[in-house]
Amino acid sequence: MGRCLLSSTISSLRICQLPRIRLPVFPKSRSTNSQYGFCTSLSTGGGFCTKAALSEVGIKKEYSKVAADSTGSIPSSELLKVVEAAAKTGAQVVMDAVNKPRNVTYKGLTDLVTDTDKNSEFAILEVVRKNFPDHLILGEEGGIIGDSSSDYLWCIDPLDGTTNFAHGYPSFAVSVGVLFRGKPAAAAVVYAEIVSDVEFVGGPMCWNTRIFSAAAGKGAFANGEKIHVSRTDKVEQSLLVTGFGYEHDDPWATNMELFKEFTDVSRGVRRLGAAAVDMCHVALGIAEAYWEYRLKPWDMAAGVLIVEEAGGTVSCMDGGSFSVFDRSVLVSNGLLHAKLLEKIGPATENLKSKGIDFSVWFKPENYHTEV
Amino acid sequence: MGRCLLSSTISSLRICQLPRIRLPVFPKSRSTNSQYGFCTSLSTGGGFCTKAALSEVGIKKEYSKVAADSTGSIPSSELLKVVEAAAKTGAQVVMDAVNKPRNVTYKGLTDLVTDTDKNSEFAILEVVRKNFPDHLILGEEGGIIGDSSSDYLWCIDPLDGTTNFAHGYPSFAVSVGVLFRGKPAAAAVVYAEIVSDVEFVGGPMCWNTRIFSAAAGKGAFANGEKIHVSRTDKVEQSLLVTGFGYEHDDPWATNMELFKEFTDVSRGVRRLGAAAVDMCHVALGIAEAYWEYRLKPWDMAAGVLIVEEAGGTVSCMDGGSFSVFDRSVLVSNGLLHAKLLEKIGPATENLKSKGIDFSVWFKPENYHTEV
Repeated sequence: MGRCLLSSTISSLRICQLPRIRLPVFPKSRSTNSQYGFCTSLSTGGGFCTKAALSEVGIKKEYSKVAADSTGSIPSSELLKVVEAAAKTGAQVVMDAVNKPRNVTYKGLTDLVTDTDKNSEFAILEVVRKNFPDHLILGEEGGIIGDSSSDYLWCIDPLDGTTNFAHGYPSFAVSVGVLFRGKPAAAAVVYAEIVSDVEFVGGPMCWNTRIFSAAAGKGAFANGEKIHVSRTDKVEQSLLVTGFGYEHDDPWATNMELFKEFTDVSRGVRRLGAAAVDMCHVALGIAEAYWEYRLKPWDMAAGVLIVEEAGGTVSCMDGGSFSVFDRSVLVSNGLLHAKLLEKIGPATENLKSKGIDFSVWFKPENYHTEV
Repeated sequence: MGRCLLSSTISSLRICQLPRIRLPVFPKSRSTNSQYGFCTSLSTGGGFCTKAALSEVGIKKEYSKVAADSTGSIPSSELLKVVEAAAKTGAQVVMDAVNKPRNVTYKGLTDLVTDTDKNSEFAILEVVRKNFPDHLILGEEGGIIGDSSSDYLWCIDPLDGTTNFAHGYPSFAVSVGVLFRGKPAAAAVVYAEIVSDVEFVGGPMCWNTRIFSAAAGKGAFANGEKIHVSRTDKVEQSLLVTGFGYEHDDPWATNMELFKEFTDVSRGVRRLGAAAVDMCHVALGIAEAYWEYRLKPWDMAAGVLIVEEAGGTVSCMDGGSFSVFDRSVLVSNGLLHAKLLEKIGPATENLKSKGIDFSVWFKPENYHTEV
């Protein structure tokens, strides 16, 4: 991978510890919600709430599963194998490019599109079409191709976190999710991290990859090891993540407010800039939740399945049932979902009341779905 | 070739020690100022500006160097060796603890202090005192100890990014900087990154370390390789980083505004949560700038030297000369410094006008400085 020519040597040098981090044990008695201002206009809309009422919402509320009920006629292990191969193939293109000069063109003011994007998508498409020539494919770069009568729709982000990639800033990823009748059936996210070891002379910018994957009903994995979301159930003990799209419209401004409000009441809100990576961090249990407006199917298809299969919960930002054709997502460890929606839900409803479109963003014509 | 040329040019520009300048600085020639709202109340206070007047100010502006003129009686190589050894020793404690259960107590609402903090600082202190028993030491945990008649003051952050550490979220670091007569003379930041390789079976949470170091006048290094800040000179093509402290006061709210404004006009503002790591990213050239209010000497002492020795520029957030005893910092690749201060400077002046204290935070009594 790029300059990491001695990757086997590096591996042996690494201080490798236990496979999964244990959550720190925090004091049980923490202050109540009220001190964190949960009863603001953003949280309940009416400036009125009681702890009892909030708890009740938390207990009663259930969220629909986003995963497909089955992987159809293709065994999930086979589907997953191809998804992983496709994502790895794209990641290889990205890794090969990461230390080379890149030709950068612009979609918008801050939206970089690089050759790498296109080359990665092309490489992924090759893998998919070679294995499943009759499947429908939606790529960030190439749009929709293939047979819309297929039950399978591949959602491909060949380079999630393009800005980070362009700057060599962690983190960025390749995200591949395949839907069966509109619902995520298998997913893989391969992401790049800067690596170097104290004893290693490979220089300051050596890159490595990590793969997250999941199949519907089969759990989520990071580098082959089962992962689980965190068990934190208090907003004030949570680490949150969000993102801001390229379009600086009303949802963008609303999320700036949410960023501020949650920074105020949580342990912090991180802003890394790659949706798929952020969702993998929730699945891994190192962050409790992630939300963002204005996402597209290729941003979300893989990540939401990985989070759900790691034990987490997925919904739209208004709290409603999620499909990858929607325009927003909230993923969490589940325990915090209702509490986060106390703020995020009303803020999103407020956007709706202003006429912001939260209807399905896009669903391929004639594609049969169960969502 | 280009790198050396740029480096020597920057150095020669900074020979002059300028008095603290409080006026905001504007770009030499920007044709697109208006689109970034540079003439808002935040930037000039009066809603009136002309490009000619701004250019003139821009040309005149230079920034004082933060590095010590020498390392005194101790050769810089010797000082650097101990600084690096100290930081690595602390990092070993952190790495040993990263997968173990931790006992956490609270300083403030979201300020975690772990045993690891204390153990890391103890280990670092041992290295420093063994090598230089007569030096003065300021640790985040232990406060000030040692001989205040010493020319040397060690500033130690045994665990920068405690919240990230507690969650197992990248990134966190150990930061050790030593001042000679109040100015940074040598610095080391060792930080942890999650690592795993597709081919590597170490599991999803394997940690690695990377060391950034610098000595005054000797350049900055990452794992022994010379590093340099980026050459981006346009805000709209820059990736920026900031942080938000635990105290949610006026500077916190002002920085929320800055976060929003810069997210609007740049490629993005990242929020990772560890000052030393963020500064190393600027030094490495993968981000263009970082700023934060309410920092302490141990947060900044190492990072500012590493940025400056990588060719970058350091000032307070009002644009004035920086010392590690100050309460805010802006580090950048230099090329963008004045442009960023167009927003950050007036916002900071506004805080001052509201009575927010930006005087020296702390300087050990009787400690002789040249700042």
